[in-house]
Amino acid sequence: MTHSNPTPRPVCILGLGLIGGSLMRALDDGGRGVFGWNRSPAGADAASAAGHDASTDLDGVLGRAADAGALIVVAVPMFAVDGVLARIAALAPGCPLTDVVSVKSSVRDAAARHGLLGRYVGGHPMAGTAESGWSATDPGLFRDAVWVVSVDAHVDAAVWREVVALAEATGAVAIPAESDEHDAAVARVSHLPHVLAEALAVVGASGGPLTLALGAGSFRDGTRVAGTAPALVRAMCETNSAAVITALDECLAELSAAREALTRGDMRDLAERGHAARLAFENRTRAVRVVDPGAPGWLDAARGAAAAGHAVTCG
Amino acid sequence: MTHSNPTPRPVCILGLGLIGGSLMRALDDGGRGVFGWNRSPAGADAASAAGHDASTDLDGVLGRAADAGALIVVAVPMFAVDGVLARIAALAPGCPLTDVVSVKSSVRDAAARHGLLGRYVGGHPMAGTAESGWSATDPGLFRDAVWVVSVDAHVDAAVWREVVALAEATGAVAIPAESDEHDAAVARVSHLPHVLAEALAVVGASGGPLTLALGAGSFRDGTRVAGTAPALVRAMCETNSAAVITALDECLAELSAAREALTRGDMRDLAERGHAARLAFENRTRAVRVVDPGAPGWLDAARGAAAAGHAVTCG
Repeated sequence: MTHSNPTPRPVCILGLGLIGGSLMRALDDGGRGVFGWNRSPAGADAASAAGHDASTDLDGVLGRAADAGALIVVAVPMFAVDGVLARIAALAPGCPLTDVVSVKSSVRDAAARHGLLGRYVGGHPMAGTAESGWSATDPGLFRDAVWVVSVDAHVDAAVWREVVALAEATGAVAIPAESDEHDAAVARVSHLPHVLAEALAVVGASGGPLTLALGAGSFRDGTRVAGTAPALVRAMCETNSAAVITALDECLAELSAAREALTRGDMRDLAERGHAARLAFENRTRAVRVVDPGAPGWLDAARGAAAAGHAVTCG
Repeated sequence: MTHSNPTPRPVCILGLGLIGGSLMRALDDGGRGVFGWNRSPAGADAASAAGHDASTDLDGVLGRAADAGALIVVAVPMFAVDGVLARIAALAPGCPLTDVVSVKSSVRDAAARHGLLGRYVGGHPMAGTAESGWSATDPGLFRDAVWVVSVDAHVDAAVWREVVALAEATGAVAIPAESDEHDAAVARVSHLPHVLAEALAVVGASGGPLTLALGAGSFRDGTRVAGTAPALVRAMCETNSAAVITALDECLAELSAAREALTRGDMRDLAERGHAARLAFENRTRAVRVVDPGAPGWLDAARGAAAAGHAVTCG
């Protein structure tokens, strides 16, 4: 494998739902060679009917990936990851490997169990909708989105470069993160917001029709993601439960302190710190640092970018 | 006073900030006679410069209101309500009286202390922005907004009709509610969302730059109202602290139960109830019932509309 090859290796996508299917469409639109597998015939047929190269024959697809030296992208739900990795280990263990699953430590550990860690670099595009399946796919889904790329100690520089290039080919911005850091971060800014939205919706509705009639902007925005299908919320929170519990415990401590302060008629502390925190979010900057995978100290450079919340691109 | 009078009595607005000033502009645009008072010369001057009838002489304005039999609207912050009601009791005790303060029981109790209950009907337009002062006023602020009108036992039918008409003159929809019910409802759908947004912002920011870099739609929406000035958040939550604590305790119970469920890897209960509650909010309907103030049983009819979350108009 060489990253100076002018014809990039094809991409083999396993799972053509919202994320995998949108990735297939984005890459096909960009002229990159891409083929894929989907478990259900309905999804594979829909992809084929739209002119894409899709099959329901996993072993056949993996044999083709091995022959072509394809970059394999695992895009199945977490519960199906282990079974797919087992087939990859059997049929295409030499292919570079990434994934788009919303938790990273669990996938990394599964890759290790199957002896695939040396060719694996985890990924997570922070994009999606409440919809699912091929019919919800959108080749523009990743444009300007954040695509997390793992910088765990095991990563291979050449595979890492290919995964960053894959993210950038879809219009996304690559942000490096270690798997555990990723899982802790999304617990705070993605999974906890879902938990709070569900709780707020319940407390509002338990007030009855008058209460819901008085709900306006703050209630509408605060409960928006409670409109997500419960199965999707469960999948993200339950597969990252340890990190979600850590974030939730911090939140419970803040709310309990605010409750005690309110008994004294004083909510100054939380109101001021919350406002400052929101301003920090609004005013965050996204610098792009150039990293040269394989150069001395490149992984530390990428981790430094991660700690500062910066994006990276490859020099 | 008669409600068949073709020339409605003028409106006297005390306090020309965001709400009072927007009300003055909406009424002036509609050709209704309106004059007002503002404590600070800057606000009164800005209103006058824009062609409105504004003064900093409270006693003079109240004398004029008494002479004209004006409908007085108290539009000052809660901490200033008591002082303004004392002047009204001294100079214009016979005028019909309402307010636009975001808590209702406290204002009602203050009106009672000053002997003004017989002419007072509480109001609360559920509209606003994070901005304040005359420069933030907007004559369209109330269009399609909910304007809560009190149906406490003491209300006078003729004043009630005038307050509903005032709300409708701005483009708002009148929803009847008893003061305690109003305060309990806004604690759930307005004040609690602010408390949760502050706590979520703090937990997100405490994750550091990488965490904020990964924040996307769910974090942005969930923390939006944490961008409100801390003083405004404090004013709404601290003046309604008992009801906020009740709502917050329910929320803490939901979150604590979800935390325990997550230790077993199962968030089904909250995810499903939260989703159902959000759908109930999205699918709420706003029927409009006709009420005839003063007719037998009219207050019970209005309260029935309140319990169902319906709007009212006067027949």
